[in-house]
Amino acid sequence: MKKVAVVLSGCGVFDGAEIHESVLTLLALDRAGAKVTCTAPDIAQKHVVNHATGEEEEEENRNVLEEAARIARGSIESMNDLAPDEFDAIIFVGGYGAAKNLCSLAFDGAEYDTDALIVDFIQTAHEQGKALGFMCIAPALAASALGSKGVQLTIGNDADTAAALEKKGAKHVNCPVDDVVVDPANKVVTTPAYMLAESITQAESGINKLVAEVLKLA
Amino acid sequence: MKKVAVVLSGCGVFDGAEIHESVLTLLALDRAGAKVTCTAPDIAQKHVVNHATGEEEEEENRNVLEEAARIARGSIESMNDLAPDEFDAIIFVGGYGAAKNLCSLAFDGAEYDTDALIVDFIQTAHEQGKALGFMCIAPALAASALGSKGVQLTIGNDADTAAALEKKGAKHVNCPVDDVVVDPANKVVTTPAYMLAESITQAESGINKLVAEVLKLA
Repeated sequence: MKKVAVVLSGCGVFDGAEIHESVLTLLALDRAGAKVTCTAPDIAQKHVVNHATGEEEEEENRNVLEEAARIARGSIESMNDLAPDEFDAIIFVGGYGAAKNLCSLAFDGAEYDTDALIVDFIQTAHEQGKALGFMCIAPALAASALGSKGVQLTIGNDADTAAALEKKGAKHVNCPVDDVVVDPANKVVTTPAYMLAESITQAESGINKLVAEVLKLA
Repeated sequence: MKKVAVVLSGCGVFDGAEIHESVLTLLALDRAGAKVTCTAPDIAQKHVVNHATGEEEEEENRNVLEEAARIARGSIESMNDLAPDEFDAIIFVGGYGAAKNLCSLAFDGAEYDTDALIVDFIQTAHEQGKALGFMCIAPALAASALGSKGVQLTIGNDADTAAALEKKGAKHVNCPVDDVVVDPANKVVTTPAYMLAESITQAESGINKLVAEVLKLA
């Protein structure tokens, strides 16, 4: 039984982990018989967005770990307490949380920084030969951590976002929603998910392939 | 193309809509080619639970519609503005939100009341011959609205909860996690989902059947 960590970044597409991507990942992993640990860093969200209106709620403060726990039905571990060597693979879900809470891409564009805990976790996992999956905008985290390895990845086909990731040293490959980009040397698998998906079944098609490829590399 | 409303009650199993059930329902409906409208009442949550600790956050206030919008990726309509005649079927997702925000079962047990908007929506839909689906603890809403019709339903096999629903006039039938109870006369389909599920794939098995049966009746 493969042990897989699923890294979440809150709960809700506009300020946290994309919920459909998260659940589809958990579903594909459970179907494959993997043992899943949901995790998130114990840090403040950069902001809170009212998802009914799209407006920022300036008075509100939420915690990434506590909100991610909603997706995990309460069964979650702080990433601050986890080490990659406990797992065979690690999968990073998308949503603006990945680009706001785990790195600053949504605010800083090509000049973005990535949370040190995240960079360290990915680099340590990579050194240990773990399989890594990143979907939607989360490949920005892979670019930060593994750009120096020339990691090959996709965020779909958005030229500006691709250029931002290539500035970190990553090599971007355009990819349709129902497919994945596999970098076998770095054991990194990526898929566009809701960077391109126009429906939940479209998102599912790529995510199912990502989970299968990650488990193959694990 | 069948038009289906999916009724959510927040976002997170302990104080809102159960997220896995919600996403699995959206997935099954999209696969079946249904046109989905997510909706929730524009009311305050009864309380907010920190899902990482299980503790109530006494200082926090959240709105059911705004939180439900996270599951709907921002595409949601207030139930206060919707009429059942716009749809062929209506599906109510579970989670404590159904038993806290839409009715008071989680607080009042067998003496529970159900939000008037919800009762009216279900009764109007029933009078119009719409197909109705309820999963997990949401059949409590069906018991309130259609108990006088002797609606047949399941919440799995919990005797106390079953007795609370039967007190409203419903007839409870024990049901395993991967099956549904269909009341063809009332066009009501129910499944235990996370009342019994020990994994997301177990929840999926019953939810897929519920969606198929609801669409058949619609």
